[in-house]
Amino acid sequence: MTQNQPIGNEATTQLTEEGVDALARAAAHATKEAPARASLISDRAAKIKQSAVRDVFEISMQPGLISLAGGNPYLQSLPLAELGQSAARIISERGLEALQYGGGQGTEELRQQICMVMAEEGITDADPANVVITAGSQSAQDVAAKVFTNPGDVVLVEDPTYVGALNAFEAYQVDVVSVQVDDDGIVPAALQATIDSLTAAGRTIKLLYTIPNFNNPSGVTLAPERRQEVVDIARAANILVLEDNPYGLLKFDGDLPRPLRADNPDDVLYLGSLSKIFAPGLRIGWALVPAHLKQTFYLANEAVTLCPPTFNQLFASAYLREYDWRGQVATYRALYQRRCEALLDALREFMPSEVSWTSPAGGFFVWVTLPEGIDTYPLLYQGIDAGVVFVPGAAFTTTPGPSRHLRLAFSAATEETIYEGVRRLAPVLANAIAAL
Amino acid sequence: MTQNQPIGNEATTQLTEEGVDALARAAAHATKEAPARASLISDRAAKIKQSAVRDVFEISMQPGLISLAGGNPYLQSLPLAELGQSAARIISERGLEALQYGGGQGTEELRQQICMVMAEEGITDADPANVVITAGSQSAQDVAAKVFTNPGDVVLVEDPTYVGALNAFEAYQVDVVSVQVDDDGIVPAALQATIDSLTAAGRTIKLLYTIPNFNNPSGVTLAPERRQEVVDIARAANILVLEDNPYGLLKFDGDLPRPLRADNPDDVLYLGSLSKIFAPGLRIGWALVPAHLKQTFYLANEAVTLCPPTFNQLFASAYLREYDWRGQVATYRALYQRRCEALLDALREFMPSEVSWTSPAGGFFVWVTLPEGIDTYPLLYQGIDAGVVFVPGAAFTTTPGPSRHLRLAFSAATEETIYEGVRRLAPVLANAIAAL
Repeated sequence: MTQNQPIGNEATTQLTEEGVDALARAAAHATKEAPARASLISDRAAKIKQSAVRDVFEISMQPGLISLAGGNPYLQSLPLAELGQSAARIISERGLEALQYGGGQGTEELRQQICMVMAEEGITDADPANVVITAGSQSAQDVAAKVFTNPGDVVLVEDPTYVGALNAFEAYQVDVVSVQVDDDGIVPAALQATIDSLTAAGRTIKLLYTIPNFNNPSGVTLAPERRQEVVDIARAANILVLEDNPYGLLKFDGDLPRPLRADNPDDVLYLGSLSKIFAPGLRIGWALVPAHLKQTFYLANEAVTLCPPTFNQLFASAYLREYDWRGQVATYRALYQRRCEALLDALREFMPSEVSWTSPAGGFFVWVTLPEGIDTYPLLYQGIDAGVVFVPGAAFTTTPGPSRHLRLAFSAATEETIYEGVRRLAPVLANAIAAL
Repeated sequence: MTQNQPIGNEATTQLTEEGVDALARAAAHATKEAPARASLISDRAAKIKQSAVRDVFEISMQPGLISLAGGNPYLQSLPLAELGQSAARIISERGLEALQYGGGQGTEELRQQICMVMAEEGITDADPANVVITAGSQSAQDVAAKVFTNPGDVVLVEDPTYVGALNAFEAYQVDVVSVQVDDDGIVPAALQATIDSLTAAGRTIKLLYTIPNFNNPSGVTLAPERRQEVVDIARAANILVLEDNPYGLLKFDGDLPRPLRADNPDDVLYLGSLSKIFAPGLRIGWALVPAHLKQTFYLANEAVTLCPPTFNQLFASAYLREYDWRGQVATYRALYQRRCEALLDALREFMPSEVSWTSPAGGFFVWVTLPEGIDTYPLLYQGIDAGVVFVPGAAFTTTPGPSRHLRLAFSAATEETIYEGVRRLAPVLANAIAAL
């Protein structure tokens, strides 16, 4: 097979918006000084990263390029014809409701169903009254930053962490500080040391944002024995834990890890999403908010979007009511497990011995580490020349300077495509290592 | 007909979320001191108004109550069965796109179609590259405040103005300052004097938020001869005009007023929405951003919501491509004109002579003024007892203390219901006047 030839219909997978964001952030460390800004622009807007790499987005659309960049879920296994009929029924029979304004917190039915989904995720005591429907979990991150942080406050994050959360937080002029992570997630002693050091310096720490399950981008899962300790450390320092669990149900096999929220209803604000288990194009996420903070969170969310889209909520409710959504989750688990294994197999087959990577127990991503001294950002362009796109590690960190990491997504490409993508990528990395 | 009996299927019209917000704001001047807040809550969140009147929301749902409170569009005249089939086709034939993540700025097709809609509104030079799709125009107001204001900056608004905009702005700790309005909209000399006074006091004014056509809540339209002067005054003071035009196409008859943006592409950020001409439940609004500010606005919008819902955009595109949307707008114009006339007729028939009101040329709302000394907020509860709900004027202003105004919406109720609603309201107002 010649290089750059399409493989299956996934070979031309577009970068997702999240992938573009990540590329933009990765480029930021190489970005020239921002152009002179009009006096109109707020200080907080000036903190939002420039998109120097939207050019790459254009390039990456070229036919034949294999994208291992974007974390798109694989929607091909959804029953689209039947879902279309469900949508038709909602609009023809309940159109006056579906197309009209709705309540700001979201429909009662969907909030109840979300409690059912969260029960599946391990949270059995959720009250629909404390669920706020948001425009994806991205919007919940924005609202959390708005509600809980003042400029100059500190938000703790894992290093690496979700690029969209970094963008959301930094727009509020907070200082985002990374906490050390190993193969078992946040290191409690490091978390404590970071808090002690910041507190000694007089800083106010408001939030600990964590993706404890199959982290984006690292694929790492917080070890069960560390979970309560992490919450306890945060609670003792009056830090609210923001637990983001979009991939929670997508563990490949075995029991799901217990959410931090499960045993800590007052200290953890839990974010969920239908994007990975149903359809990201609906933009339906949610926040399960501690009862004492719910009203404030709710009002702030309403000031942002007035109300969530009604049709989308009714459609999501129909999916959770009338379809075998648990069976679909089981299908996704098996599918993503096969793809993850295909990726890990290909890495073992093609990668130079100096390269290492994580072995996720679920989710969408594998995190690849190269030797010290390598900057994966310029390798992005070499990868594109070789017919494969990834996201350089600099996207996912607040640490300035080059990153020797990169993220590979296995969610959107077939096993065959993943294999070919890694085959194309390997010589790029080998050349960089040889040039050290 | 006995009081409180349902009239047609509109008699039990629910308050919209916007109506609830307005009621909440109206109550705020009477609200007790906010309860002690956890140290977690940000200063900006503390600015978001308490919802002391969500109780009233519950009360207002009682059967038989006539709501003239919420500005719901009348969706009964949409071709719901056909629209359902359009939705089915989108999901069954293009589901992999419709249910997937999309670009952060919105689809190219919808942005082009929105330029077509704006051409109908009077803006003929819009470039789809400068259009950003937002979650309703509420979200665009939030992003504008985020992008253009620092805490302590001033945002100028009309008095009265849209309750949702006040909530969005105040969440960013700006000082919202009202500009004097008469029956022809913003008074240019008053605008200039306000700017001069604030500037002399060392204040930074960033935005002038205006709804020049059929203002919510006042129904007032900015006179054609004032329009350029308003923009010129703002430009000279380096103030960006935020022109919100959700009702722009819903003039009852005659030519549409020329948007401020039409002749001032660099000085006016224009907000539009499909909520009033198609379906608010989709949450599709847009911003037409001056080219020099577009990238900043776009990135901030993306940090809030990642991307607009894809299905909703494809569905809106299908509506604008395959349906007689201009015919539907014509239907709405005639419908709302009849309802407005019914409301004005009823006011003339039933209201005490001391009461006055505006006569809108389009839109959804009439603004009612009572004699000095009257507070319309307690009258809300008397209105509910009499079987009719309105929104007290305090909702729509930053001026502290009681308001002698109230807003009546004619968009969602039939002519018969409107008539009965005003008949119920009149004695409540007459009693208040008699008690002066």
